Amino acid sequence: MRTLLRVDVGAGTVTSEDLPEELRLLGGRALTSVMIAKEVDPACDPLGPANKIVFAPGVLAGTTAPNSSRLSVGCKSPLTGGIKEANSGGQAAGRLGRLGIAAIVVEGDPNGKKWILHLSTEGARLEDGTAFWGMANYPCAAALRAAYGPKVATIQVGPAGEYGMRNSSVACTDPEGNPARHAGRGGVGAVMGARGLKAIVVDDTGAARPSLADPERFDRARKTLVNGLKTHPVTSQGLPNFGTAILINIINEAGALPTHNFHYGRFDEAEAISGETLHQNCEDRGGKRSHRCMTSCVIHCSNVYNDKEGKYVSSGVEYESIWALGANCDNGDIEAIAQMDRLCDDLGLDTIEMGDTFGVAMEGGLLPWGDAQRMIELFEEIRHNTEIGRKIGNGAGHCAQAYGVTHVPTVKNQGIPAYDPRAIKGIGVTFATSTMGADHTSGYAVAPNILKVGGDLDPLKPEGQCALSQALQEATAGFFDSTGLCLFLAFACLDQADSLAAIPEMVSALFGVEMSVADAVAHGGKVLEIERSFNKRAGMTEKDDRLPDFFYKEELSPHNLTWDVPDEELNQVCGWSPVVELG
Amino acid sequence: MRTLLRVDVGAGTVTSEDLPEELRLLGGRALTSVMIAKEVDPACDPLGPANKIVFAPGVLAGTTAPNSSRLSVGCKSPLTGGIKEANSGGQAAGRLGRLGIAAIVVEGDPNGKKWILHLSTEGARLEDGTAFWGMANYPCAAALRAAYGPKVATIQVGPAGEYGMRNSSVACTDPEGNPARHAGRGGVGAVMGARGLKAIVVDDTGAARPSLADPERFDRARKTLVNGLKTHPVTSQGLPNFGTAILINIINEAGALPTHNFHYGRFDEAEAISGETLHQNCEDRGGKRSHRCMTSCVIHCSNVYNDKEGKYVSSGVEYESIWALGANCDNGDIEAIAQMDRLCDDLGLDTIEMGDTFGVAMEGGLLPWGDAQRMIELFEEIRHNTEIGRKIGNGAGHCAQAYGVTHVPTVKNQGIPAYDPRAIKGIGVTFATSTMGADHTSGYAVAPNILKVGGDLDPLKPEGQCALSQALQEATAGFFDSTGLCLFLAFACLDQADSLAAIPEMVSALFGVEMSVADAVAHGGKVLEIERSFNKRAGMTEKDDRLPDFFYKEELSPHNLTWDVPDEELNQVCGWSPVVELG
Repeated sequence: MRTLLRVDVGAGTVTSEDLPEELRLLGGRALTSVMIAKEVDPACDPLGPANKIVFAPGVLAGTTAPNSSRLSVGCKSPLTGGIKEANSGGQAAGRLGRLGIAAIVVEGDPNGKKWILHLSTEGARLEDGTAFWGMANYPCAAALRAAYGPKVATIQVGPAGEYGMRNSSVACTDPEGNPARHAGRGGVGAVMGARGLKAIVVDDTGAARPSLADPERFDRARKTLVNGLKTHPVTSQGLPNFGTAILINIINEAGALPTHNFHYGRFDEAEAISGETLHQNCEDRGGKRSHRCMTSCVIHCSNVYNDKEGKYVSSGVEYESIWALGANCDNGDIEAIAQMDRLCDDLGLDTIEMGDTFGVAMEGGLLPWGDAQRMIELFEEIRHNTEIGRKIGNGAGHCAQAYGVTHVPTVKNQGIPAYDPRAIKGIGVTFATSTMGADHTSGYAVAPNILKVGGDLDPLKPEGQCALSQALQEATAGFFDSTGLCLFLAFACLDQADSLAAIPEMVSALFGVEMSVADAVAHGGKVLEIERSFNKRAGMTEKDDRLPDFFYKEELSPHNLTWDVPDEELNQVCGWSPVVELG
Repeated sequence: MRTLLRVDVGAGTVTSEDLPEELRLLGGRALTSVMIAKEVDPACDPLGPANKIVFAPGVLAGTTAPNSSRLSVGCKSPLTGGIKEANSGGQAAGRLGRLGIAAIVVEGDPNGKKWILHLSTEGARLEDGTAFWGMANYPCAAALRAAYGPKVATIQVGPAGEYGMRNSSVACTDPEGNPARHAGRGGVGAVMGARGLKAIVVDDTGAARPSLADPERFDRARKTLVNGLKTHPVTSQGLPNFGTAILINIINEAGALPTHNFHYGRFDEAEAISGETLHQNCEDRGGKRSHRCMTSCVIHCSNVYNDKEGKYVSSGVEYESIWALGANCDNGDIEAIAQMDRLCDDLGLDTIEMGDTFGVAMEGGLLPWGDAQRMIELFEEIRHNTEIGRKIGNGAGHCAQAYGVTHVPTVKNQGIPAYDPRAIKGIGVTFATSTMGADHTSGYAVAPNILKVGGDLDPLKPEGQCALSQALQEATAGFFDSTGLCLFLAFACLDQADSLAAIPEMVSALFGVEMSVADAVAHGGKVLEIERSFNKRAGMTEKDDRLPDFFYKEELSPHNLTWDVPDEELNQVCGWSPVVELG
């Protein structure tokens, strides 16, 4: 039986209980969303004492399943005002799985106390975290290793989260101990910070893998999946060799790379920030062009980026970050982008939200377009919690309000990621209708729209995009976000029926149940329904399931298209009834 | 036939048309709300080019009706995101009535141009306003008089509105030409500023009063009303002798004076900022303790406040402003309050929103509690549009987000006025359910709850408050906000049936129609319905018709009561159906 930990930061206590029977098969996002929906008042202030933060590895965490160490972080979001699950790679989730921990619920009013939560085979305890409070993520990770042993994995909040900024992440350390993997979106860091919890230290020394109901069945399914990943061109060649940054040229070519705060679909300097440039630099400078963010990974899509002197800058300079801090801000300086990626990791900021914020701030006149040096300087404003820092640390929507900017790429107040919805309509549906706010990972329609993985649907046409996005959103919630498996497995699973089937098969073998592909899809649909209900109780309406007005009105070059997926179809994705107007 | 002016700030043109037949009987708020609901997309960005701003005097403007020069300003609010009507005293509305102008619709994208709209018997024209752009309200009013003649009335936007700040007002000049009367709430100034319209200059030289269908009938009704006002103790003695500031001691005594950002219901230093103190100073220093904000006024509740040297500081230092910049911020310095009232008028800021913002900023640590000197300094940050200035110039909700404050007295993001809803439950219902966000003027239940005018209902009990507030909201919209009559007439009309009946009687005599008291109430109800429909289409739900969470949870001293009007009753006021939950 897996364990549910309740951490009361007011009393300074940790209690351990068996995961209730009705939650037995839940993990990751399914578990965080069910618990938040059950235990958190949708009307509460997300930064107030009534909010809770739940950490949950997926159900396959700690097993030999490939890429199975994603950590889900759930709460009411200070950014969207709705329910939030953000997940991260890194080492922590796998270790929580080995310790038999299904979820950690952190609650209560710390009344100014600062905490470290220490987890090991000897149990769970809260310790005084005052000495670590105020540290940025990199020095904090090093200090925690110095204090608790070189092999611990840590889950941390950086300065932005400590300051209660609405763009603030929860960081997880990677195999090298770098706090470079983040549950980035929705301001989860501020909720952890509001609980006074600086870090969770996970020491799995002496812990065994979870026991399997049917080890042979599990291993058969695992091998099927690993074999699929080793043969699909995206997971065996594309991602290992080129990483996510390969998308810069692909999406730019597709005319969908948001440039100059979503005013254009192509960036003149794309080549300078492309995956090809990035990876050449990685090789030339003694970095790595194929790196894993968790030891269970079989894909290795990440990288290690060094500066010209060969000194480590950041690990996992990803497509979304390069776009956000690059093209969206008219910035073609890859060195500056890598440096800002490191600053985001160190301060605990989501790179996507940060890039959207800079775009809005440039539109509002805070700094010149493309001024990478000024961008870097502005991170110091966040680090020191200055007036400007608070203005750009609270996300694109807040920054737009502050400067009176009306061209604001957000949905549910969360910044839109690296794909212009006018030129990739499927992902636009996901941005509009996701329970999470604009979020590419919650239904990655870019795959069939652009990469021709899992289907082939014309990205420029609205037809069929809602059905596509809906199916992907259910599959994502059901197969990946709840199992703790990396979403990139989907590239293989969307094309390989046996790889997809291997996922519920592993879950079946783990728990001794029978879960089919259809069951997993239905499970995902149920998770979405619970999340939508929370959002509705928090006051969201069908108006929140819309893209910003300018996408409907302004044409995007080079295709010169507007957003034209009918609102009625978006309503169907989200289960909204036809509107009956008063008066 | 009254005239509708359309001002296109993009083309630089003004067109004049007859007010359409179906709008013939509408004025003030009824007219602005109908036009905004009809012509403005509820999904548009309030600061973007799709929003419009409508100026409309009431139907009785320009007639001999007492106190009939209130000007309604309507738009989609940048503060609440819903429909907005804010109204102001001063001279402009009466003069618009004499010019036969029913409404001015300002629309289009100015593309950087700055305008003055000049209105006279010779017609309407847009003129280059570049020379006036950037001026604060007091010097701007003087400059406009110098340019257009000493007798013009002006309607102006100050620096806060020019900067697009969400706390920004539209100012109207009083009989002395001081821009001291404001359509304060909801950020209407920013919408005027976004249209590039610095001021409207109203010159009624040579204009006659509106022609009356039945002059004798009108005069009979007018005399009835004036007689009522001259005999009711509140309008004939209380308000003329003591002004609105008399409420400081009354509301403090009632334990409902929000103190220290709505943490307490009584202020230790109330006496120092009381109406009695204020009016003594007015007398002692050559100011005025009985002053009128419009020439048609028969009440004279305003004042002229001079400093110790006898130099003019501000006119109409009102209860709400004294509370906001005083008790709510632990500030007992009446001189500083008067100075800040002047600064609000000069910069074009709503005093209520400003005081709520300071309370939140003090809670967030920007400045010490009660530090009046620092408060005054912070206005200079707004004047110069600095980083801090933008943070406190965008209202309490924005400021709370910026500093991570969770104790935020707003409804629909608009700051709550000077009555704690836990101790005056009727006004709490109005704050929660008004279409305008927290707004005391939209249904002033303080009258029967505290002043025992228009009834007597225990302020501490929830029973009956919803019915009371609903009736007052309908009456306010129907009798006052749409006729352009000052709301303070209600003190007499609530107790005198013939005074109340005189209002629709004057409208009947003006237009040659038959309007009864019941018709006026129904008219008010219809206005509310149109506004609610707009807000619903803008994405509001029953969750927006609620007070902040802390009122439900924290007891207010000295009565130690929480907010306990049932949500279901609030829903009935607003016409929300019982909620059916998903899943």
